Order: sequence, then structure tokens, then C-alpha cells
Amino acid sequence: MRAVDLIQKKKEGKTHTKEEINFLVNGYTKGEVEDYQMSAWLMAVCLKGLNDQETAYMTEAFVNSGDILDFSSISNDIADKHSTGGVGDKVTLVLIPILAELGIYTAKLSGRGLGFTGGTIDKLEAIPNFKVELTNEEFYNQIKDIKVAISSQSPNLTPADGKIYALRDVSATVDNKSLICASVVSKKIASGANSIVLDVKYGSGAFLKTPKEAKELGDLMIKTGKLLNRNIDVVISSMEQPLGYTVGNSLEVIEALEFLKGNYKKDLYDITLELATKTLLNCKKAKSKKEAKKMVDEVIKNSAALNKFKEIIEHQKGDTNIINDYSLFKIGKNKIEIKAQKSGYIKKLIALDVAYAAKLLGAGRDKKTDNINYGAGIILNKKIGDKVTQGDCIMELYFDDVNEAKLNDATKIAYEAIEISKIKPRKPKLIY
Amino acid sequence: MRAVDLIQKKKEGKTHTKEEINFLVNGYTKGEVEDYQMSAWLMAVCLKGLNDQETAYMTEAFVNSGDILDFSSISNDIADKHSTGGVGDKVTLVLIPILAELGIYTAKLSGRGLGFTGGTIDKLEAIPNFKVELTNEEFYNQIKDIKVAISSQSPNLTPADGKIYALRDVSATVDNKSLICASVVSKKIASGANSIVLDVKYGSGAFLKTPKEAKELGDLMIKTGKLLNRNIDVVISSMEQPLGYTVGNSLEVIEALEFLKGNYKKDLYDITLELATKTLLNCKKAKSKKEAKKMVDEVIKNSAALNKFKEIIEHQKGDTNIINDYSLFKIGKNKIEIKAQKSGYIKKLIALDVAYAAKLLGAGRDKKTDNINYGAGIILNKKIGDKVTQGDCIMELYFDDVNEAKLNDATKIAYEAIEISKIKPRKPKLIY
Repeated sequence: MRAVDLIQKKKEGKTHTKEEINFLVNGYTKGEVEDYQMSAWLMAVCLKGLNDQETAYMTEAFVNSGDILDFSSISNDIADKHSTGGVGDKVTLVLIPILAELGIYTAKLSGRGLGFTGGTIDKLEAIPNFKVELTNEEFYNQIKDIKVAISSQSPNLTPADGKIYALRDVSATVDNKSLICASVVSKKIASGANSIVLDVKYGSGAFLKTPKEAKELGDLMIKTGKLLNRNIDVVISSMEQPLGYTVGNSLEVIEALEFLKGNYKKDLYDITLELATKTLLNCKKAKSKKEAKKMVDEVIKNSAALNKFKEIIEHQKGDTNIINDYSLFKIGKNKIEIKAQKSGYIKKLIALDVAYAAKLLGAGRDKKTDNINYGAGIILNKKIGDKVTQGDCIMELYFDDVNEAKLNDATKIAYEAIEISKIKPRKPKLIY
Repeated sequence: MRAVDLIQKKKEGKTHTKEEINFLVNGYTKGEVEDYQMSAWLMAVCLKGLNDQETAYMTEAFVNSGDILDFSSISNDIADKHSTGGVGDKVTLVLIPILAELGIYTAKLSGRGLGFTGGTIDKLEAIPNFKVELTNEEFYNQIKDIKVAISSQSPNLTPADGKIYALRDVSATVDNKSLICASVVSKKIASGANSIVLDVKYGSGAFLKTPKEAKELGDLMIKTGKLLNRNIDVVISSMEQPLGYTVGNSLEVIEALEFLKGNYKKDLYDITLELATKTLLNCKKAKSKKEAKKMVDEVIKNSAALNKFKEIIEHQKGDTNIINDYSLFKIGKNKIEIKAQKSGYIKKLIALDVAYAAKLLGAGRDKKTDNINYGAGIILNKKIGDKVTQGDCIMELYFDDVNEAKLNDATKIAYEAIEISKIKPRKPKLIY
């Protein structure tokens, strides 16, 4: 087999065999297929596509390229959740303790954020002393002990995907559904999950712009799961405005704690419930949506989920005092208020603009090596559909030392994120 | 400007500006655009295309990437000829002396063959002592003195094309008309020609399989010439069977000499006349096709073209005695005759098979570093449409030391090249 022939084959729109996909993926990982061949092939894939079976082969090849975690000695049902990424998305922080409290084992490997705002691992690092890097043994033992652990990703999982992703990023071959699907699903499978729920987001603040695209990706992920004997379910949700009322690492952990204390915004609750319900049904812990809702509401109401979060923090060496003393979090010393320029209703609150403003304040990073300021971020006092009077504070920008140019940009962009109309707009549909 | 954005742009089927094409070509030549980015872009070009203007920009960028030869102090009309490659194609060897004798300056840079049979430079090296590597000064002075010189290509011409061609070869991005056009036309322009005639071949023995594809490539080359102020004309010709009656380096030079002595096969004469006519009309040396034919026939009949070939050999230090003593050529010591298995008419004489057999005998090379046996080759005693009686010798295979396995393969393939039918087939159309 020669790489050049396989590139030609895909260029002509033909279908690869399992052996061919393995040859390309394994050859590339071992350095036998060259970068310039893989990138040409990836471009052919972007323009000619992979079918469902080829996508599953690719996913499987990614899984087999590195370590595969195995928790079958602990439970037959290991759940995992993944979001394709959104602004203010702190769902993992609330969903994981709820599920663990309801008896579901969750081996959660999360990433750091690159781009606008922090990832789950960055958010957890906003908790003083929280240890995000667990060894395989620590990870395993904690799951056995308290049903859940959250760790930053081991470099030995899906190395093929890691190498190919880096190449996609610099060769304009990121935006292909099959490649995205293989990348996401392979990580979940390699991390030992067999019951996976994926939150595929669309809208101005998401990678996919339309519900149609999100639906297509979601369907492909479900099919890939079926072909690889994994139970995958998908929630398609909108990312037009930030989720919840905070953006930024410390602020989002506080919002998650408030949520578990029963004080939540409807949008964050709705999506968390949807994801929890699917997982509970998948793992046969609930028989109906109604029962699932009752179970979720119960562990919030009786603080059991909050206590489970405390247990996670405790096991991962974090400071549990933060639960009742938010002053232990770093929060930006300075504040700028973004005020309503006129009276009316919030018509738009562009997620991407809010994220970009937060990044300028220090909440995100451009390069892997950039430092995050955990205290930087934005509180949203209003969301789409809310009534405002001229002068009302819509957003609060929190920051420490930010140079004037960046601060001016952040302020300008925060104002640009907002559109106020006289007519009350329809609330955007969150779950598709 | 970033390469990744330009790759994305072409992936989306958008049109590049001149600056963008220059950025990619120059950046790649300088090593600032990476191999894996160029190959991804080339794949996007293969699948989304370049328009005529983009093709011209690319051609121009190739020309400007290295030296540009200039013979304007010698003549305003510098002719050049190029063939997209065929089996038994010795047209250059006969056309160049004819044109020079008719007053047309020709600065001919030719390549060595890679693939099945030798290139023009390999053929000339079959002439004992013939010097194929001329310095720029020698090349220039010889053209000034005797109107014509033939040299192997200088490495400083179109280095961008050289680097990109090598990448295309290993990334399955060879077969795109715009990329082929830019590669061919840029070399001709950089070598100082302003009146260029191109022989675009189609058929089983050519790169392009159908006359339609050849016509499209030819039209694109003509348009590219117009956009870059060069006079380009194109002949579309068939390559179903080998051209003339020999394949292999020494044998083809002998056929060329015989041609110039007035002993020629009709097909080689027809295509040579067509290319000569176009050049004579382009350079205003002839007013009509009829006049051009008369001029060509005249310099063959009175041996003036043969004497011009002798002059070229003399100037390039070759042994001119070969003209009247073919025994000075190396010719394979051994011979195998390929005989008609039945009586009838030659229906097929598959060019690619004949070429492959010749290569197995030693007439071509697989890698740049392989040696050619100039004496290896094939004489075709019959061509398509000819009547044969069972046992007639259709081909003679000449070779020296070839291992048995290769020899068996060559013989087998030579037999497979031939199809004999009872009904007389139509002679294939040579010029489209």
C-alpha cells in the first residue's frame, strides 16, 4: 500500500477500506506517512467526504493508536459527557456531581481552553489547590471510591488524533464532520466510557453555525457509536448567547456552586437536565424523563450533589472552604459596567463577542503557553428577552492588570455584543 | 497574509488574487510556506480548480522564481517546442534542425526521461561524445552562431515549479490542467521563448486519455500565453501507438537521421510538419500552410536540414560520423522477434505496453539515478492498419544484459501490446 495511491483514491471520491484507513492513520502516527501526504489526504476528505463506515474506521484507528482506559472492573456503565464548546458552558461542573450522586460512574477527562475562554480544567484550577493532573492510578482509585474523577487529558490517549489535529489546524482542514466526529468520539471511547452524551452546539458562539449542521454532526456521532458498540446520545443546543450568567473561570465555578445550591438560570438548568436525563435513561437508572427530572431535582434540593462536588474537591486536594466562602476565589479587582444605551428589550447578546471581551480581560489564552487570569470574566445581569431601562447595568467586566488598548477593545466589543429593540423578542430556543 | 487562510479560500472554491498566488509560490520556494500547507492547497486546487487568470498568475510566479533567459539581442522571435510526452516521440530531433535551417532561432532546453523511455537529452546522449550540458554562455553563443542549441535544463529555471512538482508527485496532485499548464508554459517562457508550439498528446500512451482533455489543456495553454503576452499554439495529437517505427535512444536517433534523409514514416512526418507549419506561421516565415509544407519538404530533399543536424552535433562535440555510419551507435547485441500469432490486420499496438517493454530492456529509468542502456529498444515493423501473415515479425526487441525475469516480462508485454483482427481497422487519426 502506498499513501499516494490512497490520496488519489480519496481525491476521486472513492471509499477506503478499514486497512487503508489504518495504514494512513498508523503510518502517519509512526512518521511513515509524511505531513504533506496526510494534509493532502485531509483536504481530499474535506472536499469528497468520508462515509459513516470510513468515519467509524478512522475513530477506531484513533482509539487504537494509544492507551485505552478500562474501568470494567468497577462498573459496566461508565458515562462521559462532551460539549463541542460554547461560551459560559460550565455544564460539566454541575452535571458530573449530579450523575455521580445518582449512582453513575463518570471518568471525566477534560481539556484546557484554547481560543476564547477556559476549558473545564482551567475552571477547576480556579479552585485553590485543586489538583487537575491525576495519574492513571489516582484517576482509577478515585472513580472506584467516589464514582467520579476529573483529570486533564493523558498524553497517551489517541495520539493519532493529537498529531492529525495539529496538522488540520494549520492546513485549513478542521471543518469536516467526519474528522470532528472521529476526534471527539475516539477520545471518549479511549477514556473508557461506553455511555456517552454529547452536547453539539450551534449558533454564532459555536463552531457550527446552523442547527442543520449540528444535527448532521450529531447523527454521525450516534451512527459512529453504533458501529463501534458504544451508546452515544446527542443534545443539539443553541449557542447564540452565553450559557448561564457568567463567563470566566472563578465566576463560572461560583455559578456552578450556586446552581448546586438551587440558584440557577433556566438555560443552564434545562441543558443540564437534558444531558442528565439522557445519561440516566442510557444507563437504565431512570425509566422515564419524568423520573429523571425528579431524581435530578431531588439531589439539588437535598444538597447531595453539592456534597458530591465537595467530595470531588476534597479528593483532588482543593480548598472546600470555597463552597461557602466565595471570597477565597480570585476575582478581578477592577470592574467596568456595560450599561443599556437605551430602554427596550435585549434582542441580541452575541456569545462570541462576550467571549472575546472576556479573553481580552485575561480569561482565555491565545497560545497553549499563555497564562490565564482566573479572576477575569464577565457577569451578565441581563439575557435575551429581558427588559432593560436606559442606564441599567447589562454586564460587569472584572479584571486586574489589563493594558488600556485591550481594555478599550474589551469594552467596545462588550457594547457591540448587545442589541436592544423596542419590541419584545422571542426567547431563543435552547434545545433543538 | 497567512497560508492557512489561502488554503481555506481555495477549499471554498474562491478565486485568488495575484498577490495571493505570489505569496504561496514565493513563500513555498523560500520555505516559509510548509510542504503540508502547499500539498493541502494543491489538493484544493485539484478539486476546486484555478481559473484562467489564476493559472496565468501561477505560471508567472514560476517564471519569476528563477533565472529568465533572454535572447532578444539575437532575434525577436525565439521559438520553442514541447511535447507532453509520448512513446517513440523523436519529433524534437527532426523539427529543430528543420526550423533552424528555415531561419528560426530555437533555444531548446530539454529534460531527461523519467518513467518509460528516454527524454530528448537521453536520446542525444546516444550520439557518442554529444555534450548535453551547455553553460548559459555556450548555449547563447551557439544560438547566435547556428540559430539553435539543445541543452539539458539549467537548475536555475523555474525553481518554484521544480519544488512544487516534486511535491505533486508524492501527494497525488499531478493531474490538474492548471498545474500542468503552469509547469510546462513557465519553463518555456523562462527559457526565453516567445513563440511556442506545444504538442499535447492523448490516448492510452499519454498522460491525458481523451482528445477532450487534451483540447482543454491545449486551450488553457493558449489562453495562458495570451495573458502573458507569449504566442502559444497547440497541436492535439493521438498517442495510441508509438510514433514512427522505433522506441529506444540509439534507434530513435537513427530514425531521426533517416527522416532527415527523406526516409520517414507518415505519422512522424505529419506531426513534424504540423508543428513546423505552426511555428513558421507564428514567426511569419511562411504565409500559408502550403508554403510552409513546401519549405519543409525542400530542406529535407536538399539535405539542408540534415546538414543543420550535423552542425548541431559538431558544435556540441558529438561524433558526426554517425550520420553515415550507424554502426557507431550502440545497439543491443541480442534480439528477440515478436511474431504475429495469426494472420489479419494490426488493430492495436498499445503505446504504453511497447514503452514498458522497452524500459524493461533498459531503454528507460525508474529513478533519476538509474542508468539507461542507449542500445536497448524496439523496432516496429508493423503499425496499426498494416496487414500481417502469421509468423511475420511485428517487433524486434534489442537488448544487452537483461535478467531472465525482466526479459520474460518484456516479451510477454510486447505480445500483449498487439491485437490482430480479421477486419481491416480504420487507421487512427493522428492529429485532432
